[in-house]
Amino acid sequence: MKLQLALDEMNLVDALRFTDKVAEYIDIIEIGTPFVMDEGMRGVREFKRFFPDKEVLADLKIMDGGYLEASYAFEAGASYATVCGAADTLTIQGAVKAANDYGKKAVVDMITITDLPKRVAEMEAIGAHILAVHTGADAQQVGREPIEDLRVMKGCAKTAQIAVAGGISSQSIDKYVALKPEIVIVGSAIGHAKNPVAEAKAIKEALL
Amino acid sequence: MKLQLALDEMNLVDALRFTDKVAEYIDIIEIGTPFVMDEGMRGVREFKRFFPDKEVLADLKIMDGGYLEASYAFEAGASYATVCGAADTLTIQGAVKAANDYGKKAVVDMITITDLPKRVAEMEAIGAHILAVHTGADAQQVGREPIEDLRVMKGCAKTAQIAVAGGISSQSIDKYVALKPEIVIVGSAIGHAKNPVAEAKAIKEALL
Repeated sequence: MKLQLALDEMNLVDALRFTDKVAEYIDIIEIGTPFVMDEGMRGVREFKRFFPDKEVLADLKIMDGGYLEASYAFEAGASYATVCGAADTLTIQGAVKAANDYGKKAVVDMITITDLPKRVAEMEAIGAHILAVHTGADAQQVGREPIEDLRVMKGCAKTAQIAVAGGISSQSIDKYVALKPEIVIVGSAIGHAKNPVAEAKAIKEALL
Repeated sequence: MKLQLALDEMNLVDALRFTDKVAEYIDIIEIGTPFVMDEGMRGVREFKRFFPDKEVLADLKIMDGGYLEASYAFEAGASYATVCGAADTLTIQGAVKAANDYGKKAVVDMITITDLPKRVAEMEAIGAHILAVHTGADAQQVGREPIEDLRVMKGCAKTAQIAVAGGISSQSIDKYVALKPEIVIVGSAIGHAKNPVAEAKAIKEALL
């Protein structure tokens, strides 16, 4: 299982310095959506330059222009770009095609999708590489978490890898690990920890 | 009716020089989603600096973190930020709250929404300022256009203003004008025209 660190609200320099501290426990560095909106693809380029041995994910949450937008991420050095499951299937096909053309991967973020088995089947039919179970930040505020959706997704996915995100921390990691997702995404639990290194280490060890 | 120019695939300098030529016919300058992904909020800041008398829209297509992400656009000088109708209603409420706090407007992009009357009612219930009918670029490639969705939206919207986007040009503008949207969004018809000034002028005159 890979550990993906989501960087959302830090500015570029703070995020680079922060990541330096915890990098040994991180497999995938996520340039989060607010980060992309703030800095554009500069965030992806600089992280790939400072951490050439890490994979970088650009959390674009593409909703249209799938090929064009995904190609921006891959041109900038990302190994993964996200597209929303809520987008038109044509858009997701475009992002998947861009990923295949660049030898990279498209991640379909299933945020707000209610009929998961139906959409998982549609996504696998178009060759989506990774499907991400995702309870958004706004939904977490009212107490939702992604564990049940992860159970459903693992039950119906046949070919795609599965990632999971939504308020996961060292306190809750074991129940997610038990369901064997390929990628666990952690943001604020590490980013806002009193001791980020200890938190990243504890989560990484739970994944091994 | 206002004319909104969508700038998607040009780099910042090209987009600024291009907009100079057609600015007299444009009410709202849209920093399109690919442009935001490429340049971040720098695109919004520079356009507001060069065109202080124009309104700027940041086409963020927010899917999570509604308050935070919309506030980035308003801090950078945008008068409008977009959030997806496909997002969690909590996310859209966050974007609307940010808009109200900054004295700006949230635009709900209805891209991929199938039950428009239901979602329009939900969006008006939370005080969304503007609802945008939108046939995406990928859907336009297979011949779809937004005219029927605009008819449905105008039929059910009671309080929100209506914007429309999706391959509109001087050739098709009259049928959209007949349905009286408050904002007409044009991108490639002006951006890729042989004579962009003539195309912008023709569309603007149709709106008067």
